[in-house]
Amino acid sequence: MNGPDRWPPLPRLTAAHVPLTRDVLVVSADGSRRQVPLAAERALTLYVDRQELVTLMTLGQEPELLALGYLLNQGLVASATEIESITVDWDVAAAAVHTRHGVSGLAERLARRTVTTGCGQGTVFGDWLDRVPPLPPATQDAGSVEHAVLVQLLDAMRALPSIHREAGSVHGTALWQVQQAQQAQRESGGLGAAGEPQMLVHVEDVGRHNAVDTVAGWMAMEGVAGEGCWLYTTGRLTSEMVLKAAQLRIPLVVSRNGATAMGQQLAEQLHLTLIGRAGGGRYLCYSGAERLRLATD
Amino acid sequence: MNGPDRWPPLPRLTAAHVPLTRDVLVVSADGSRRQVPLAAERALTLYVDRQELVTLMTLGQEPELLALGYLLNQGLVASATEIESITVDWDVAAAAVHTRHGVSGLAERLARRTVTTGCGQGTVFGDWLDRVPPLPPATQDAGSVEHAVLVQLLDAMRALPSIHREAGSVHGTALWQVQQAQQAQRESGGLGAAGEPQMLVHVEDVGRHNAVDTVAGWMAMEGVAGEGCWLYTTGRLTSEMVLKAAQLRIPLVVSRNGATAMGQQLAEQLHLTLIGRAGGGRYLCYSGAERLRLATD
Repeated sequence: MNGPDRWPPLPRLTAAHVPLTRDVLVVSADGSRRQVPLAAERALTLYVDRQELVTLMTLGQEPELLALGYLLNQGLVASATEIESITVDWDVAAAAVHTRHGVSGLAERLARRTVTTGCGQGTVFGDWLDRVPPLPPATQDAGSVEHAVLVQLLDAMRALPSIHREAGSVHGTALWQVQQAQQAQRESGGLGAAGEPQMLVHVEDVGRHNAVDTVAGWMAMEGVAGEGCWLYTTGRLTSEMVLKAAQLRIPLVVSRNGATAMGQQLAEQLHLTLIGRAGGGRYLCYSGAERLRLATD
Repeated sequence: MNGPDRWPPLPRLTAAHVPLTRDVLVVSADGSRRQVPLAAERALTLYVDRQELVTLMTLGQEPELLALGYLLNQGLVASATEIESITVDWDVAAAAVHTRHGVSGLAERLARRTVTTGCGQGTVFGDWLDRVPPLPPATQDAGSVEHAVLVQLLDAMRALPSIHREAGSVHGTALWQVQQAQQAQRESGGLGAAGEPQMLVHVEDVGRHNAVDTVAGWMAMEGVAGEGCWLYTTGRLTSEMVLKAAQLRIPLVVSRNGATAMGQQLAEQLHLTLIGRAGGGRYLCYSGAERLRLATD
């Protein structure tokens, strides 16, 4: 974990806040009128050392962590410590990123982009696939997946208060610390209080990629490594989602949604355990099933 | 409509085909193993006059129409007739677009991009918002929305065979011709065979923006105007979806999903009727309710 006198220091972040929903008058099929909350969607333009990089459409929950995670996940900076400060000003819809020593080759990297689909903010740089090394092979060691812990996580996510529950039209992503929980589960044969998986952070956004980028920003600021964690998402398991998780060294991604064939293929190559269609105690494991300890085992 | 001796001529398109699903072996929570089909996701790089423009991640259903619709919706070409040919070769994952007279200012336009979120292919150009004029104000004229026609459309979409039903993890978009159907509905007081709304095209893709871009490409090739049509989508109604529909002059967009606050606000500004959470005879109208003729009217 990071202390206050860590060197090199972490970036200074503002804590900009905006309303995350807006009430709108709607007309129902029966002609009745009522107010419903809708999820906010707003533009946030990232400037890196005064150079315009990209405009993200976002809910606006944690804009500083989103900016940081975006830069990390796109490989524009290798570490949060390369950044001196991130200043978000919603009045001008801007996140001003100041680096300590500049970003090498920023212009060249901007020239070549991949626009992706799935459900997300889209842009990755063409060399991304080459940058992500595979995770350790999936085995039933300390990183194995206990069925009971997975079900507990899914139940907790379903019960969580959220913008999605209030207003819909957002995707959620949560990072869970599970290694200690699983250790306790194996030792006691059941889940004690000490054995419960712990949700570290929960982020919602209009794009599922923004949500996972924000989680990446949070991990960088808190000094949390992905190895002992699982990533929960409400979104589809496309190629980009798998790549981002592998880049964060998170060995398991679980979604209540399904996977694409390319998401499955990449997960297999990168030794990532990919679980979808999860809910109500059921799920499908698309890859890395070697990590699973099922209820029937 | 476009005839074979239309001048200037429409672009020549290849008709590249690839499998849209792939069977994968999955493990269920109860330990059973089975094959399930997953939706394909593949990269398609667009080259315009040999210059690399963008790489889209797509299902691959209608890649030529996707490329055409992307160029139109991004405002890179004003008309399909500016393009001589689009050649898709899946072996090299490329769509080669040849224009008749080049694209003016392509390099400059590439320099400034907006990466958006929602659930989609993402990139729009920064000047997009300025390019889309509002639709005619919503009134109960020939363009009004009959409740019975809307419900019939929703029922038909639910019953439609689809990759989504087979493999999940894709979004669908359909263009419906409704003006004649509504005219008949008003004259007869009920829906006859002649009064049924007609589905013109149905496209699925891993990104909902790819799907609507492909519909735009289809409209350009077939010479179909948006005015008498409605757009159905399974995706969320975000700002970009509303902008694309307004650009196509389609006065109504309906989704089984919800809207963001910005999607609603733009729809209001552009006089677009925006309907979400649609299914089972129920829906919410977020904007342009002046067009609605409800069952209770």
